[in-house]
Parts: sequence; structure tokens; C-alpha cells
Amino acid sequence: MLISCVAYENGKKLADIPVEDISEYVKRPDCFVWVALFEPTREELDEMAEEFELHELAVDDARSGHQRPKLEEYGNSLFAVLQPVEKIKAADGTEELLVGEVDVFVGDNYVLSVRHRTQVGFSAVRARAERERELLKNGSGFVLYALIDSVVDRYFPILDSLETQLEAVEEQIFVRNAARSNIESLYELKRKLMTLKHVVDPLMEAVGKLYGGRVPQVCAGMSEYFRDVFDHLQRLHATIEGIRDMQTTAIQVNLGMINLNETEVTKKLAGWAAIIAVPTLIAGIYGMNFKNMPEYDFTYGYPLSLAAMLGIDLGLYFWFHKIKWL
Amino acid sequence: MLISCVAYENGKKLADIPVEDISEYVKRPDCFVWVALFEPTREELDEMAEEFELHELAVDDARSGHQRPKLEEYGNSLFAVLQPVEKIKAADGTEELLVGEVDVFVGDNYVLSVRHRTQVGFSAVRARAERERELLKNGSGFVLYALIDSVVDRYFPILDSLETQLEAVEEQIFVRNAARSNIESLYELKRKLMTLKHVVDPLMEAVGKLYGGRVPQVCAGMSEYFRDVFDHLQRLHATIEGIRDMQTTAIQVNLGMINLNETEVTKKLAGWAAIIAVPTLIAGIYGMNFKNMPEYDFTYGYPLSLAAMLGIDLGLYFWFHKIKWL
Amino acid sequence: MLISCVAYENGKKLADIPVEDISEYVKRPDCFVWVALFEPTREELDEMAEEFELHELAVDDARSGHQRPKLEEYGNSLFAVLQPVEKIKAADGTEELLVGEVDVFVGDNYVLSVRHRTQVGFSAVRARAERERELLKNGSGFVLYALIDSVVDRYFPILDSLETQLEAVEEQIFVRNAARSNIESLYELKRKLMTLKHVVDPLMEAVGKLYGGRVPQVCAGMSEYFRDVFDHLQRLHATIEGIRDMQTTAIQVNLGMINLNETEVTKKLAGWAAIIAVPTLIAGIYGMNFKNMPEYDFTYGYPLSLAAMLGIDLGLYFWFHKIKWL
Amino acid sequence: MLISCVAYENGKKLADIPVEDISEYVKRPDCFVWVALFEPTREELDEMAEEFELHELAVDDARSGHQRPKLEEYGNSLFAVLQPVEKIKAADGTEELLVGEVDVFVGDNYVLSVRHRTQVGFSAVRARAERERELLKNGSGFVLYALIDSVVDRYFPILDSLETQLEAVEEQIFVRNAARSNIESLYELKRKLMTLKHVVDPLMEAVGKLYGGRVPQVCAGMSEYFRDVFDHLQRLHATIEGIRDMQTTAIQVNLGMINLNETEVTKKLAGWAAIIAVPTLIAGIYGMNFKNMPEYDFTYGYPLSLAAMLGIDLGLYFWFHKIKWL
Amino acid sequence: MLISCVAYENGKKLADIPVEDISEYVKRPDCFVWVALFEPTREELDEMAEEFELHELAVDDARSGHQRPKLEEYGNSLFAVLQPVEKIKAADGTEELLVGEVDVFVGDNYVLSVRHRTQVGFSAVRARAERERELLKNGSGFVLYALIDSVVDRYFPILDSLETQLEAVEEQIFVRNAARSNIESLYELKRKLMTLKHVVDPLMEAVGKLYGGRVPQVCAGMSEYFRDVFDHLQRLHATIEGIRDMQTTAIQVNLGMINLNETEVTKKLAGWAAIIAVPTLIAGIYGMNFKNMPEYDFTYGYPLSLAAMLGIDLGLYFWFHKIKWL
Repeated sequence: MLISCVAYENGKKLADIPVEDISEYVKRPDCFVWVALFEPTREELDEMAEEFELHELAVDDARSGHQRPKLEEYGNSLFAVLQPVEKIKAADGTEELLVGEVDVFVGDNYVLSVRHRTQVGFSAVRARAERERELLKNGSGFVLYALIDSVVDRYFPILDSLETQLEAVEEQIFVRNAARSNIESLYELKRKLMTLKHVVDPLMEAVGKLYGGRVPQVCAGMSEYFRDVFDHLQRLHATIEGIRDMQTTAIQVNLGMINLNETEVTKKLAGWAAIIAVPTLIAGIYGMNFKNMPEYDFTYGYPLSLAAMLGIDLGLYFWFHKIKWL
Repeated sequence: MLISCVAYENGKKLADIPVEDISEYVKRPDCFVWVALFEPTREELDEMAEEFELHELAVDDARSGHQRPKLEEYGNSLFAVLQPVEKIKAADGTEELLVGEVDVFVGDNYVLSVRHRTQVGFSAVRARAERERELLKNGSGFVLYALIDSVVDRYFPILDSLETQLEAVEEQIFVRNAARSNIESLYELKRKLMTLKHVVDPLMEAVGKLYGGRVPQVCAGMSEYFRDVFDHLQRLHATIEGIRDMQTTAIQVNLGMINLNETEVTKKLAGWAAIIAVPTLIAGIYGMNFKNMPEYDFTYGYPLSLAAMLGIDLGLYFWFHKIKWL
Repeated sequence: MLISCVAYENGKKLADIPVEDISEYVKRPDCFVWVALFEPTREELDEMAEEFELHELAVDDARSGHQRPKLEEYGNSLFAVLQPVEKIKAADGTEELLVGEVDVFVGDNYVLSVRHRTQVGFSAVRARAERERELLKNGSGFVLYALIDSVVDRYFPILDSLETQLEAVEEQIFVRNAARSNIESLYELKRKLMTLKHVVDPLMEAVGKLYGGRVPQVCAGMSEYFRDVFDHLQRLHATIEGIRDMQTTAIQVNLGMINLNETEVTKKLAGWAAIIAVPTLIAGIYGMNFKNMPEYDFTYGYPLSLAAMLGIDLGLYFWFHKIKWL
Repeated sequence: MLISCVAYENGKKLADIPVEDISEYVKRPDCFVWVALFEPTREELDEMAEEFELHELAVDDARSGHQRPKLEEYGNSLFAVLQPVEKIKAADGTEELLVGEVDVFVGDNYVLSVRHRTQVGFSAVRARAERERELLKNGSGFVLYALIDSVVDRYFPILDSLETQLEAVEEQIFVRNAARSNIESLYELKRKLMTLKHVVDPLMEAVGKLYGGRVPQVCAGMSEYFRDVFDHLQRLHATIEGIRDMQTTAIQVNLGMINLNETEVTKKLAGWAAIIAVPTLIAGIYGMNFKNMPEYDFTYGYPLSLAAMLGIDLGLYFWFHKIKWL
Repeated sequence: MLISCVAYENGKKLADIPVEDISEYVKRPDCFVWVALFEPTREELDEMAEEFELHELAVDDARSGHQRPKLEEYGNSLFAVLQPVEKIKAADGTEELLVGEVDVFVGDNYVLSVRHRTQVGFSAVRARAERERELLKNGSGFVLYALIDSVVDRYFPILDSLETQLEAVEEQIFVRNAARSNIESLYELKRKLMTLKHVVDPLMEAVGKLYGGRVPQVCAGMSEYFRDVFDHLQRLHATIEGIRDMQTTAIQVNLGMINLNETEVTKKLAGWAAIIAVPTLIAGIYGMNFKNMPEYDFTYGYPLSLAAMLGIDLGLYFWFHKIKWL
């Protein structure tokens, strides 16, 4: 589906143009065309491939989707795969991460973005770009930057929510009987974290090629901006690694808490078992049928025996209490 | 066993040719010969070695098989070892991964592929190559690409099935009493994953030498295609690492679930033990033989004692239920 | 909030100058201006940006704070983000680490430091710089060094206290019943360690660019000093890794101790259970109602049975004691 | 002990020569001398050092032995340390790995090998070298290759046996009550694996310097052969890492099986305890001495009580059986 | 404290000289001065700094001590920090590792060593250097080598003792009831290993700069000797990593043994509980007060009941013995 198709000149929007005129505008110097597609049909993509003379392999990638983030040079043009991540409510009410895909073809005077499986579009990016005319003069390179920047900025709230989740588990981790829910949360956290990691790390590697050293032609002059995006990705990367590290330790600690709890249960079991078993033994003794058991004839034999049971149990109870078994 | 032996010129099939004529066709410019062998005898391989002037060490490797994927230059020719992976049903009904081997000798105007221990051949590759004439004009380099691409593409469904297996375990991981089967699945998964990893990682390293920087002569002009294969291998690699990471965490989590379950069993044991032990104590007390036990003469002594036992047990039961031990 | 704004010439303080005169002093050769801000308003920062012609992206970073340590070149000027760490008492009496931020803009003849969320300022650094005139002649590069050096020096006592904490746990680790508090301390330690690590490692990477090889203009001639800071950061890094490694092992060991303790509790439970159960069995036997039980008529039947119980229990006790179960 | 001392010319054996004539033959062009020593005395080694003008540090290494594999250049000569590994039967019947050492001095026209603590010699290597005259023309470089190749080839059966050992454990790993022997095997496996790893990895690093890039003079022209050895070492390395990885997982899995087993024992204990405790309670109740217990007078009171006990126990047994506790 | 101050010329000792004359001798070509200090006062160090024109930052490091091993170039001079490790008896009789420090300043014609916190000095190094005149002609570079070599050689016996400790644990690791002492030994071993690692690794990195590639002026011509030291450090490094790896596995295995032991205790508990509980049940049954219990009147009722108890118990005992629970 065609979202928009606009020609720009000298940092200024010229006009919305029909798809057929693209190749014409592309020939003009200082002019570039920015086309946005959403889940295009095979025909739409083929048409674009022809207008912009896109490389067959890149078009194949854009058609099939399900790539990992990457950045490839085809001659003077670039092909970038970005993966926006969005939070969605799953059918069972839990929050899931949805990994979309944006394929961006960038040439000297065109940008073509193809969006798959994402709810949020890039109209905000276009609006920003049209506002910042000075930067828009950099042409397609700036648009690429603005798209990547926008995708990366949307990772931060996702990562923040994972950090919050870790903190929530950390507050519960030494609480008794929270082990099962903690371990479920930690595993869930890990799964989401890995999703994010597999999106951030390859993108960081890709963006690293867009500043310093040899830089693709279309991105020249935007070095400081791409470095800024790279820096954001590095922060995301470092935070992910940090959460991952703590999460690993938290699972270990949780295992320790489970085992500690087991010990405490065993102690309780042992303590109460003793408290019941000892009077049972005494009762057993006074249930013996020897003829010659003088206690049987004592007037207070019975209450005394009960008192003995109670006394011993109280002693045991305080003893177990003192050694923290009960 | 000779599968086929075909000469091509300018991207077009010339003819099936007899083995003896190979050296003749190889001399013609713009012409190249593509030979496919399946588990060749020593003599067949020796004959090829002579026709194509293959290096002794490479022929040794192709003869013995059991290599890991690699890519070696011998002067202007290349020797590549690929390892296709196929799913087979083992005798006991379980699914196993079968690692085959394809040794490919590539020279300026010949390609010799030697296939071992695989069920699926490369006739589809040959058909595709003959269809894509423009690309086939690149000669032996394109054939090498097509072979590698085909082997790599077959890894994806295998990896997908491992991902599915992990997801199946993940759904079971917090279910009670599933620990034994989970841990067996996870170990099995790990074994298959390692098989795939040992096939993908060296191939990725090898293919990385075929684009960018200095590239072997026969692969020149195919850079973007080899980069595409490399990109596929990177995706396989990243997915393998991702599964591996989750699988490690899953084993840890499973260990936690086993220990949690142990605690729950201990709690149940303790609870029911108390429920049986307390009335046993009461019965013991009223089995004592003191002369002077007034309760013995109460009309309702017996039912009252039973009622006491029952009452205490109900109390215990609800208490244990409340603290989630029962 | 403006803390100070001073012009220096040839290693000597010229005067406190008003903000409006900055651009004037900056033009003079051999003269440089050092401005310190604390949590500036948007307007204050904008004014500085104009006076010093700072790059928009760097100003954005300084405005939003919450960066990780880094060092970026913008043309001939540098932008450094430092993160001082301070110990504070949390509301609940525990000690927490507070990560502040200092953004430093360095040009040929100016230094602008912007401090966020820290209690301790840098007046000591300014005092030292004004004392060491020879070094201050190096201009803004020396001031950058002095600021970084001061921030890094403050990490050492923090790290020392973490080392002390580890040692405290190590002394408790083989003590019985200390497992819960040990594991809490170890987790807390890990959290603080990660905080420090995320501050030290990126700074180390950043400072590594300031000596050897190509060095930014403003830092030329200070190589040995920046190498010294780098060396300090390496020591911090190595110590952090060392503590981390021991801490991981300590958690594993702690898990072992918990399980050992569980075994000891089970042994105690088993031992005492036997000591109670055996006389209970004997009492049970002599509570049987067979007509023909000769012991019942023995004069010393009862005391003998008690003696047997006691004797067996003593035997059991010493046996369990010998095998270290009791 | 001198094993052999032979002069070669143009790939052909000239003669066994006495040690004193070595320096004479070494001077002849196209001629080289190959000397083999086995655990030489100090004097033997000193004599060789003089004849071949060996570097003091290398001779020191050869004298003391106990090195790790390495390859060092001393001017135009090479000093290589190889470590053959052999399986031996230890005194207690178990199989141990014996790490020997072969120090090889290689110059333009000499090879001196010094063998320590190995049972198998290199006569097979010499025989092979004398057969392959074409290759032997490469002189000392080929001899070095042949020696390394022979040592590396002997690693494969050792590693195969470790792989077999892992597979043996894997077959036992989910079998009940095999945990102790599994864990012992896994630890033993790890120890042997590390022995092999410490021999393979440094050698791989060393051999990597003998092909591609700048290569020592004496090895020039043998690049493809050294690359072949390197490839073998890479396969060994990859297999070792693979076994190691699986072995780590196997230990974790084993720990899980131990804990699972513990849970199963606890369940059995709980089940049988209930089956014994419930009739004990019933018997206790009918051992009470209340005057007014109508059941006592029932004709079938006794058999009915026994029947109740049996019935409840059967019920319990099937219940526990159903929930898989028994 | 000044230990010695000697001038050398052409590999020969000239004379012990007073500190004041140092600057004079330093000016002579072919002459160099070697000064050794032990825990010098501030004044002593300042005097040296002046005589040798040492860099302020290096002197600061030497004054404060507590550095990690490193090697820094200051113009044409070198500053090296070495850390000798010594075994000492701690107050409580255990062996501890004492990490000392030796700071070495090396210039074209001087060597100044400053020793802190070590018991063993370097007189042996001086003696060796004076013996090996040929090497001493290399001047200060050789002295640096001799000092580093001596420090590194002293690491070997320390590491050997750690290896022995690991082997001692390995022999105990599968022995029952050794878990607590094993885990204590393993933790202790890890601590010492990390101490050694933090001394060896940075030194290895530092020495790696003294051979191959660009080498500091004063070390030129000593390449093969520094490579030899590097090789020793690599062996130390590899051995440390090897011990560390085995130690990690040993802790895991130990955890497995603890859990196995727990299971064995639980099995014993269950077995004996059954052996006691079953006759207790029988005695309970024959303690019931039903009027109509024919067994009560059997002449051999009592001995038969005892026989039944004994018989069942024997059966149980052999059963439990067979399944290895007892």
C-alpha cells in the first residue's frame, strides 16, 4: 500500500507526486523523492524496483521480510533493514513484544521505505524532516538518519519497562514463597531481553559503518548524527547486557532461596515431628501391660503423665524456637 | 558414481560430455565444465584429479570426507567443503540430524562437486543455474554460489524446527511434573543445536572471504551474491546463539522448578504427617493403663475423643491449606 | 546555576568575568575561559551554546543528562560525559550509590563543565589547577585531565568499600545459618559493582583515545597524564572484574553450603527420629494383649523394658554421633 | 641417546653419518642433516648445540622439557615444541593420557628432533619422508611439516575416544541411579579434554604462523601443507570445544537428575509412610481403654477393623500410584 | 633504604659509588649505574628523581605503591611495575600469598629498582648479571630482563603448589562427607589463583611490548630474551586458566555430590523408618482391645507375632539393600 510519495528540493517539499513521475524527478539535481510503502503487493514493489533501479537481492529481502537489522551497500546505494519493536497485548492479557520490519532503500536522490508488521508509521519522522530544512538539505542521507533515529528512540521505553520488571523481581527475590513467580518473571524477562538484543546489536554494528573511516557516499556530511545514533545504540546495548547479567545472578539467587526454603520446611517438619513423637512415646510406655507398673496406681499418675508430656513439649518448642527451626 | 558431466558456454548448456573430453573443453575460453559425483570410487576421483589437475591435499580431503566446512585456495582454484544437514528418522522413531558432505573444486572453467552421505542432490541447483542464464555467464563462481546458497537455504527449516522445539519446552517449563521430559528435550535440543552450529559457523567464516577485500579470482563479480549468503549465515548464527542462550537459562529454570517441586512434596509430607500423627498421639494417650483416668468412664468418652481427633485434624487441614502446604 | 566563570592566561588566573564577555576573551590568543554550571536552566545552556558555538547534538546530551560516559570530537572541540559516583544514605538507612553526571565541553580556549545530580563539586580541581601553573599553561587540555582525574580518583574509595563488603561475606560464607544474609549481601554487592562497572568501562574506552596514536588537538602534550588516568581506570576495571569473578564463585559456594545444611538437617531429623521411634516400638510390643506374654509377670519387667529402651537409645546416639549425623 | 643421524641430498638419503661430521655436511649446499635424539644427556645436547650453533635459550628449553607447544624464530632457524599425547594404562587399570614432548630445531639444512617421555618414535615419519622424494626436496621445512603432521594425526584417535566417552555418558544420563558414575565420568572426561586442549590450542596458534602472510624462510614453499595441518588442528579445536560445551550441559543436566531423584525418593517415602501410618492410627484408636466402645463387643469387630485398614491402604496405594508417587 | 648503588662499564663492575656521584657516571658513555632501594623515604626517592631526571607521574606511582604490573614509556626511559608473590604463614597457621611490588626505572644508562613489601631481594639477580658479562654489555635493558625473569621464575613454585592443591581436592571430590572441606579448599584455591592471575596477566601484556614490532630503545637487542620471559608468562597464564576451568567444574561436581549425598541420607531415613514403622503397626494391631481376637489366646501368639515382625523386617532390609537404599 502506498503511504506517500513526495519530491523535495533544497530541503523544501516540492509536491506529492504520482508514482509514474518518480524517475523523472530522480533525474533532477538537488531534488530527491521519498516514498513510503506499507506491506506492498508484489506489483507495487516491482514497480518501485524499476523506477529506482533497485538490486534484485535487496528487493528479495524486502519482499520476504523476516530479516535481521543490517546495512548493505549496492554500488552507490544503500539497503537498510530496521526492526521497530512495539508492545502489544497478547490474547491472554500478557504483554508481548512485536518485532516489525522497515526496509529502507537509499540512493543519491531517493529514499524508499517499506514497512511490515508495525502499527506505528513514520509520519512524525516526515513532519520533523520537513521542519528541519537545514538538515533536510543533506538529502536522502538525512532521511535515513531520521528513520533510524526514530526506530532507535522507540527502543528506550521498551527497555525501561524491562528494567522496571527486573526491579520488581529484585524487590520480591528474598521474600518467602515468591520463588515460583520470580522465576517465571525472570524467564519472561530474559525472553524479551533477547528479542531486544537481537534487534539492537546488529543495528549497532550496521550504524557503526556510517561514521568515521570510509563512509557511504549518501551519508557523507551526516557523520556526527550517525555517531549520535550509534551512541544511543551503545547505551541500549550496555543496558541490555547489564540487565542480562543481573538477571543471570537473580536466577542463581532464586535457586538459592528455593533451597533455603526447603531447608526451612525440613526444619519445621523435624521440629513438629519431635513435639508429637515424644508424648506419643510416653503414652506408649504407659500403655504397656506389665503387671508391676507402680505409676498405674498413683492417684495423679494420669495428670502427671500429661504434665510430663506438656512440659517436655514446651521445652522442645522453646529449644527449636531458639535455634530458629520453628 | 558420476551423476552428470556437462559443458556450458556463455551461460548456455552445450552438451553432456564424456569424462574423457573434459580436459579438452576446459581449454576453450568462455567454456566451463560442471561435473557432479556421488560417493565416487578411488579411481573416479583419481581420474578427475588428473583431468582438472587438482591438488593432492584437496583430493585427500574429498576422498576421506568427514571434514568441517572450509574454503581453501590452491593457486587460482578453490576447494570448498560444505555440509548439508538433513532430518532423518532414526531406528527408534526419533528424529536425528544427518550431516552430509559436499566437496567442491572450483577452477576458472570447471566445477567438480563430490557428494557424500546425503539423500538430496543438487539437480535443482543445476536446473536453476540453467534457467538464470545472465548469472550463469559468471561461470564457475556462480555455480559455487548456487551450491552454497542451496546448502544454506536447507539449514533454515532445520533451525525452525529447533526453535519450535524450544517453544514447546517453554510452554511446559512451569508445568508441574514435566521436569524430567523437559530436561531430556533440552539436552536433545542442545545436541542438535551444536550439530548445526558446527556446520554454520565455519561456513560463515569461509564465505566471509568471498566478498569485500581481496576475493579469489573465480568469485570476482559475484560479491553481492556471496554477501547475501553470508547474511543468511549470520542470521542462522544469531538464531542459534539465541536458542542456545535461552536453552541454558531454561535448564537453570528447570533446576529451580525441580527444587521447588521437592519443597512442595516435603510440605505435603509434613502436612499429612501432622494430620495422622496428632490423632495417633491422642489415641496413645487414651490407651494408657493408669487406673485413675476419669474419661474412661464417661458415657461419651469414646465419641468425644474421636470428635476431638477429627476437630483437630480439620483445623490442621485448613491451616495447612491456608499456608499453601496442602 | 552558574558556579563560576573565570578567564586564564599563560597558566595564571586573569579574572572572574561576566558571561557576556566570554566570547571576547575566547578570541584572545593564550587565553582560555573556564565556566562551571550546576543543573543549568534551558536558557543558561542556550546562552553558553551561543557563546562557545557548541554543537547542537552535544548540547542536547548535556540538557537531557542520563548519558553513559563517552568522549566525542566535534571538529576541533571535544565533548566528554563523566559520571561521578557518590555514596548516599537511602531513606531506609542502607547505603546506595548515586550516579551523577558531568558534561564537559572543551575547545581550544574554553572549558565548560555542566554538573548534574552530584553533591560534591569541582572547586578542589580548580584550586589544584591554579596551583600547578606549569601544567595549567597546557590550557583547556589540562583542565579536562584534571576533571577526569578527579572523577576517577573518587571511584577508588567506592570500590574499596565493595572489596571490604566481599571480604565480610567471605568470612561468613562457611558459617552455618548465614546463607540467607550472605546471599542478600552478594546480590547487593553485585548490583553496586555493576553500577560502577557501567561507569568505569566506557570511560576507560574514552580516555584510551586521548593518548598514543592520533590524539585530539586540545589534548596534545598531555599524553602521559591521560595515560596515567587510563592506567587508574585499568586498575579499577581489573579490580571490578576480580570482585565479580569471586562473587560469582561465592554465590555458587553459598548454594553448596545451603544444600550441605539441608543434608545436615535431614541427618539430624533421621537420627532423632530413630531415637524416638525405637522405644516407641518396644512400648508398642509390650502394649500387646496376648494372654501368654511371660515378661508381663516378671517383677522387673517394667524397669527392664525402660532400661532396654534407654540402652538402645544410648547406643543409637553414640552411633549417630560417630558418623556425625548428630 | 642418539637415535639416528642421516644426511640427505636432493630428496635422497646420502648416508648415516657420525655426529662429528655433521658440521661438514651442513656446509654443503642442497644437503641437509636430520638428527633424532631421545632423552639426551647434557653432553649430547651440548654437542649438538655446538654443531648446529643453536641458540642458548632454545637449548635451555629442550634440556628442561615441560614446555607448552610453541614455535619460535631465532634468526633464520626455528625452534618448535610439540607435545605428542599417548594413552597409557595407569597402575590402577584406568586409562591416562601421557603428554610427551618433542623439541625440533630447524635450520636451512638441518633438523634436530629431541624426544622426551614418549613411547612412540618417529621412524614412520622418516620412512614416509624418504618415500616422498619430491616433497623431501623441500628440505628441512618438509621434515618439520612431516613431524608436526604425525604428532597431530595421533591426536585424532585420542579425541575420538573422548567423544565415545561422552556418548557413553549421554546414554546413561537419564537413567536412574547412574548419577554418581556419570558425574565421575564427566569430571574425568573434562580433565582429559583439558589436557588435549592445552596441547592443541597453542600448537594451532604456532602452525598458523607457517602459512599465509610472512612465513619463516625454511618453511617457504610448504604453505599448503602447513595450512592442511592447521586445518586439522582447527577441527580438533572445534571438536574439543564442542565436547566441552556438551559436557558442561551434561553436568547441569546430571544435577537436575540428582534433584529429580531426590524428589522421587521423598515422594516414595511420603507414600509408604502414609500407608503405614493410617492403619497404625486405627490400631491406636482401637487400643483405647474407654469403657464404652461398642465396637469391642462386635463379633466381627477385629476382622472388620483389619479390613478397614487394608481397604484404606489399597485406596491410598492406588491414589499414590495414580499421581506417580509410588 | 639504599641497598646498593653500583656503576658498570662494558659488562664489568666499576665500583660501588656514592649517591651524589650518580649523575656524573650517568654522563659517561658505555657506563651505567644500577641502584636498588628498599621502601625508600620520600627524601631518598626525591633525590633519585633528581639524579636520574625521572618523570613526576612515575615517581608518584613508585611512592604510593599498590599498582598493578605495567610498563610505561616516558620519552627514552621506561617505568616498569613488577609484583613478586611470596608465600607467607598467616597468624592462624594458614598459608597466604603476599603480593609485593618492585618499581623499576630504566634509562639508557641507569636502572633504579624500588622494592616494597617483599622479603626476598634481588642480590641473586645482581650476582647473575655480574657473572654473565657478555649479556651485561647490553646494559640497562639486560638488567630489566634479569629482574623481570627473576620475578617471573618465582611465580612457578607458587602456581605448582596451587596445582597440587587442586589435585588434592580432586582426590577427595568423590569421597563421601568431604563436601564441606572440598568446597572450602576450592574457594581458597580460587582466591589465590585470582591473586596470581591479576599479577601475571598485566605483566604478560606489558612484556609483550618488549619484543617484535617497535621495541623501546633500551630493550633493543634483547628481543629473544624478552620473548622467552613472555613465553614463561604465557605458560603461567595457560596453567592458571586451566586450573580455573577445572576448579569451576569441581565446584559444580561438588554441588552434585552434596545433592547425591542428600538423596542417600533420605533413602537411609526412608529405609529405617519402614523397618521400625511396620512392627510398630503390628504391635499396634495386637494392642487393640477387641473382645474377639482369637490370636490373643494362641499359646504361641506372642512369639509368633515377634517372629512376624522380625521376618518382615529382614525382608525389608534385604529389599532396601538390594535397591541400594541401605
